[in-house]
Amino acid sequence: MRKKITIKEVAKKANVSPATVSYVLNHKESISEETKKRVWNAISALDYVPDLSARSLTAGSSKLIGVVVPQTETGNRLMFENNFYSEILGSIEYRARQCGYHVLISASDSNENYMTLAKERNLDGIIVIGIYPNSFYQELKKTQIPIVLVDSYCNDHYYHSLRIDDIYGSYLATKYAIDHGHRQIAFFCGEIKDDGVMKQRLHGYREAMEERSLPFDAHYVFEGKIDYTNGILLAKKLCQSGLKATAVVTTADILAISAMKTFYEYGIHVPDDISVIGFDDLQISKYLTPGLTTVHQDISRKGERAMELLLNSIENPKLTKQEEIMPVSIVERGSVKTIQSKPEKKVI
Amino acid sequence: MRKKITIKEVAKKANVSPATVSYVLNHKESISEETKKRVWNAISALDYVPDLSARSLTAGSSKLIGVVVPQTETGNRLMFENNFYSEILGSIEYRARQCGYHVLISASDSNENYMTLAKERNLDGIIVIGIYPNSFYQELKKTQIPIVLVDSYCNDHYYHSLRIDDIYGSYLATKYAIDHGHRQIAFFCGEIKDDGVMKQRLHGYREAMEERSLPFDAHYVFEGKIDYTNGILLAKKLCQSGLKATAVVTTADILAISAMKTFYEYGIHVPDDISVIGFDDLQISKYLTPGLTTVHQDISRKGERAMELLLNSIENPKLTKQEEIMPVSIVERGSVKTIQSKPEKKVI
Repeated sequence: MRKKITIKEVAKKANVSPATVSYVLNHKESISEETKKRVWNAISALDYVPDLSARSLTAGSSKLIGVVVPQTETGNRLMFENNFYSEILGSIEYRARQCGYHVLISASDSNENYMTLAKERNLDGIIVIGIYPNSFYQELKKTQIPIVLVDSYCNDHYYHSLRIDDIYGSYLATKYAIDHGHRQIAFFCGEIKDDGVMKQRLHGYREAMEERSLPFDAHYVFEGKIDYTNGILLAKKLCQSGLKATAVVTTADILAISAMKTFYEYGIHVPDDISVIGFDDLQISKYLTPGLTTVHQDISRKGERAMELLLNSIENPKLTKQEEIMPVSIVERGSVKTIQSKPEKKVI
Repeated sequence: MRKKITIKEVAKKANVSPATVSYVLNHKESISEETKKRVWNAISALDYVPDLSARSLTAGSSKLIGVVVPQTETGNRLMFENNFYSEILGSIEYRARQCGYHVLISASDSNENYMTLAKERNLDGIIVIGIYPNSFYQELKKTQIPIVLVDSYCNDHYYHSLRIDDIYGSYLATKYAIDHGHRQIAFFCGEIKDDGVMKQRLHGYREAMEERSLPFDAHYVFEGKIDYTNGILLAKKLCQSGLKATAVVTTADILAISAMKTFYEYGIHVPDDISVIGFDDLQISKYLTPGLTTVHQDISRKGERAMELLLNSIENPKLTKQEEIMPVSIVERGSVKTIQSKPEKKVI
């Protein structure tokens, strides 16, 4: 077993009490400069590393934050199939490390378990990515820990919130298709829930259609889960529907990617026979053939901002709800073709 | 601030000393059944959650394991661009959670920092994915914590080790290309280092070539980093080299993916003009067009096994070095074409 220098040994060497060592470590004001110096000399001489689990007991801060990532439907993996989650986690970890925090990663397998985890580990804060059942939000705020929700429309004022302009993202994508001559535009999305981003993105799609007097037709909306398998299913459904869509606007690159593959297998080529637009701009999306035209969001920056909002809230516990909305834009690649469309009616 | 039930309140309610509560929580033998019952009743009545940071001080176990993932070259992200890392992290977290452990994720920005982290957090064990400078291994074992290395050929007997059969993987890929008529086969790999998997995979490539009396030519080996950008660079180098390669064997799917894209931009089509074989079998690889023929490794299983080896070692601290090698196989998709090759010389 490892031999570990204890706070008692430091205290003995510095000729003070263990409590005094603890005060010095936690930068309490009441210690004389002379004593402080003696304690730091002893710490240095013994190569003592303060145990953060001990410090968290005395100082009340664990320097540990939790990041909650959704699970796969089977519950046996984190949702890293969608690289969005790993990209954002990478940047949260980086920012946390820079600020002296460590990152505990986990799924929430039930509300109660995560509550227990947060208490047991004495987490300083939590970043929750994605949406969860309403009961989760109701329970989680009982921890009284600062929490930043990423990509949730839960409007409970307990939570700080960071998201992109979801409505505008899908509006841009749909408008882009319309501007390229498309009129029959299918919409592939994840499950539409009240707190979630999908409802907002559908709204953006409708807005762009209606702005150009194109009728909204619910038959063109294909709803599923956000994973590769569902991109295949939704593409098959569209192929079998008899609808004459010339373009598909999706709410996730991974839906777009597996849909493109499925169209290809049906002998329908992208972009010649059908145009496809993604959402997220994952790193992979520019390496596809054709490259995926998509709605770009700065995922790395989103992770960093989530961590910054959380830190701000940890340092200022009385801070009222912080809310931040990040911009989106269209990245043009090769998956959309300009088609001839019937001229729109003009009022002369 | 949260109101937290303390061990003192539990002790008061159970009419025992705080130390007794601690003994009961840590399952010490010396407490009478009657006292135990009283303590557990008090814990239950007060809804007390033991603070793991407190328990780790007394019980010596933090139920926390560290997972080290390499950083990007710029040092500002975890290497999640390669989905291999997020897939394996997802399965480690799952297995850990099942067994009552939590996962601290981080990069090692220097040897010393990770040493400090391991001590400060009182980690029960560490899983290190990928290879690091030799000094890192020398330092890390001073922690005296059980450590499992994934995909490292560091032969220090302190470390437990989990990897795939790297030589055989590249041997299989190269043999597959040869069996499909290819003779001029380029090899795209990451940096070849002594402790790393690349050296082994190059060995497998050579073995397959030499087995069929095809001369090894170092000009056909293109070395870089394992990321999308380098797949592009290596493909460009091959295109500009004047070499007449009809196939490329790579050591990572992400190299293969961005190389395919680059060939396409040069007007060289996969598989008609050049065949490409990957390594890893990431989830994305079957959704490409054409699908990527690749060396499959069971990444999820690898993460679970890494966690299982670590747990075994945590529970049995005197265990000598555990070593496990997982199998690989070829997954046939659409990126390899059979070509006519000159008949090989036969000894009559």
